[in-house]
Amino acid sequence: MPVTISQRGRLITLEGGEGAGKSTLLRGLEAHLRGHGVDLVVTREPGGTAVGEAVRALVLDAANNELCAESELLLMFASRAQLVRQVIEPALAAGRWVLCDRFTDASYAYQGGGRGQPMERIAELERWAAEGLKPDVTLLLDLPVGDGRARAAGRGEIDRIEVEGDAFFERVRDTYRARAAAEPARFRLLDATASKDDVLAQAIAGVEALLAGAPS
Amino acid sequence: MPVTISQRGRLITLEGGEGAGKSTLLRGLEAHLRGHGVDLVVTREPGGTAVGEAVRALVLDAANNELCAESELLLMFASRAQLVRQVIEPALAAGRWVLCDRFTDASYAYQGGGRGQPMERIAELERWAAEGLKPDVTLLLDLPVGDGRARAAGRGEIDRIEVEGDAFFERVRDTYRARAAAEPARFRLLDATASKDDVLAQAIAGVEALLAGAPS
Ligand SMILES: Nc1ncnc2c1ncn2[C@@H]1O[C@H](COP(=O)(O)OP(=O)(O)OP(=O)(O)O)[C@@H](O)[C@H]1O
Ligand SMILES: Nc1ncnc2c1ncn2[C@@H]1O[C@H](COP(=O)(O)OP(=O)(O)OP(=O)(O)O)[C@@H](O)[C@H]1O
Ligand SMILES: [Mg+2]
Ligand SMILES: [Mg+2]
Repeated sequence: MPVTISQRGRLITLEGGEGAGKSTLLRGLEAHLRGHGVDLVVTREPGGTAVGEAVRALVLDAANNELCAESELLLMFASRAQLVRQVIEPALAAGRWVLCDRFTDASYAYQGGGRGQPMERIAELERWAAEGLKPDVTLLLDLPVGDGRARAAGRGEIDRIEVEGDAFFERVRDTYRARAAAEPARFRLLDATASKDDVLAQAIAGVEALLAGAPS
Repeated sequence: MPVTISQRGRLITLEGGEGAGKSTLLRGLEAHLRGHGVDLVVTREPGGTAVGEAVRALVLDAANNELCAESELLLMFASRAQLVRQVIEPALAAGRWVLCDRFTDASYAYQGGGRGQPMERIAELERWAAEGLKPDVTLLLDLPVGDGRARAAGRGEIDRIEVEGDAFFERVRDTYRARAAAEPARFRLLDATASKDDVLAQAIAGVEALLAGAPS
């Protein structure tokens, strides 16, 4: 069946705490989707554009330890506003799919749950800065905090977010889980304690319905 | 008379279009205030902190020509949120005065008037990101757009803002003037077509009342 150029693409986002396996899963899922003929754009947050990568450097730089929670939140949405307009929306409009390593849910989890920025403030930014754009499917890699830290520790240098204590990451996890419970149609809760192959299989099952309705 | 440590400092901001003479005036006013025994912190926007200087580089980089208006607005407030908490508020709380080259009025003028971002959106950011902080006195250097461009042109390389057309800068000027008219107690409208010495004299007259009530 030929691709219908007028059909809008799909947005799939990967979420979860530090070391949950997002970037690992992204590579496997990317291969799976491309294997099914999906014209795919792969990106990440913060990042994906010139301003996004500059924001990424700023918020992850452990030396930048004075950065206040308000500034962090604004930087995340500065990156997102640009990514949505420059990368994601044009791709979706052209019928391409977008696979993104973190998106707005991460701001609710980290800047909201973790740093205590009001959820309504984040919702307001989502409306105008991110154009209210919602993923078609969000894969949440859920993992006990200790497990994620142990995995991330294996990678060496720790960034400005990773220096936070367990209580911070418990709030992040709780917020993610609460959002998944509140939006069951969008979220797929994956058991990230499973093996890499098993997590990929869970993710593939989670996007099956999307793929069935997709151009091939 | 000894300085009363419990007295809060004063915030003076300089505003105006490109090449209006803000940085020139800042040096003269700084010398005047220090000469009167004011314990002064001099800063600028965007800038003044690590995140602020990174934002400055991003928003002024002429190569970064895809930057969307929403991202620009968020970056400006990311810089401001940090500057207020890390530099301005601690200084004011310690009884020091702060002289700042541009502040929130510039967002209303440039991102609001210039780029068309809704004024209510900017007001909302001012409330939470800038803690609703209002300058004690704002010196607005008002100059016909053509005059400012001619002055700025003398400085060589043009930045990402300076590439805008006259209509953009007319909206910036109109917004500044409307704000000055709406808040006459805070604003001093200076005729920036005058000589440097004359502009400095106007500015000194504009802060006279503050200085009369200040610790010496
Ligand atoms: N299912 C898994 N089982 C065991 N180890 C895993 C699994 N998935 C990923 N890992 C390993 O855990 C580490 C972190 O994985 P990865 O970088 O994919 O996580 P992440 O969620 O992208 O982390 P970050 O939030 O820091 O970007 C890596 O060393 C990776 O090989
Ligand atoms: N009153 C004045 N009369 C004539 N020239 C002036 C006057 N004030 C400043 N200038 C000159 O105009 C140019 C721009 O001045 P300045 O850099 O102070 O402006 P600015 O408002 O800080 O500009 P920008 O918005 O780009 O930072 C400089 O060359 C300066 O010497
Ligand atoms: Mg990763
Ligand atoms: Mg200047």
